[in-house]
Amino acid sequence: MMKFCSLCANPVNYIIPAGDNRPRHICESCGTVHYQNPKIVAGCIPEWQNEILLCKRAIQPRLGYWTLPAGFMENGETTEEAAIRETLEETGAQANILQLYTLYSIPHISQVYMIYRAQLLDKNFSPTPESEQVELFSQQNIPWEQIAFPVIELTLKQYYQDQRNGSYQLKTGTIDKRNEK
Amino acid sequence: MMKFCSLCANPVNYIIPAGDNRPRHICESCGTVHYQNPKIVAGCIPEWQNEILLCKRAIQPRLGYWTLPAGFMENGETTEEAAIRETLEETGAQANILQLYTLYSIPHISQVYMIYRAQLLDKNFSPTPESEQVELFSQQNIPWEQIAFPVIELTLKQYYQDQRNGSYQLKTGTIDKRNEK
Repeated sequence: MMKFCSLCANPVNYIIPAGDNRPRHICESCGTVHYQNPKIVAGCIPEWQNEILLCKRAIQPRLGYWTLPAGFMENGETTEEAAIRETLEETGAQANILQLYTLYSIPHISQVYMIYRAQLLDKNFSPTPESEQVELFSQQNIPWEQIAFPVIELTLKQYYQDQRNGSYQLKTGTIDKRNEK
Repeated sequence: MMKFCSLCANPVNYIIPAGDNRPRHICESCGTVHYQNPKIVAGCIPEWQNEILLCKRAIQPRLGYWTLPAGFMENGETTEEAAIRETLEETGAQANILQLYTLYSIPHISQVYMIYRAQLLDKNFSPTPESEQVELFSQQNIPWEQIAFPVIELTLKQYYQDQRNGSYQLKTGTIDKRNEK
């Protein structure tokens, strides 16, 4: 949402600029076109022996549900750095990247998820302001009925399927709910 | 850059919010924190037999230099749709995605490049408002001295190296000029 120009404070219009093909927020006072673009959500599947680390969300949305550590990539960092930073912020754990594992577009919310397999450096992890509980789970103990987001449930299902097959391959795809809006 | 709140038009401050760890543009009048995040640049290596399609830029930056069709992903689309749309907009050509080929972070400009291998449907392509010239090139004819961006030169070099090796593998990495700023 944008009502006023962030450079000159005059009201913006939401119209298709000349030579463009979709509406943008335009300031007719200073001429600025304010583009809006999808955000990257980067995160990890943090592995420790045969278990993975999940966090129980202490914040909305989906407070109280379990998820992988992941969050919005920041300016000035790489996708790998974002995944490692989010893991540290949400679980207190340090991890090393193993491989890019999933790349999912979620166009109805303009997000792109990138989840990496990562190796925990040790068993130091703890609740954080964003996670009321942080725990290692074996496959049998994953709280499948309490996973916070469809993209995380899909990622975990593919992960265990690949684990059974003995090799982890990059998964790309779309969670497409554009027609449900 | 942001000087005024885009929701209420009051001046913003650039400070670290309570509970955060980096400065944001904050409106103390309405309480909004205005986050800024990296942008995805999606594009293609459009293939036709043993040639690939390049475009000579008709716009800044790097006007007159050659590049792969690529541009900022838009809200509401997938990364694959963005790559196909940019190819159509910049070259007039229709293409089908073959595979994700490169995923590069460029943190000093807060961009993430995703370049796909893609198959041209036919030889219909033409100059466009963004490309003063659009042409198929064999490896021997690539204008290596006139490539617009380092990330594109790197992508093309890896592509031809993989072609010699007989298999195209996803490349991930960073073009890191943060220390040069």
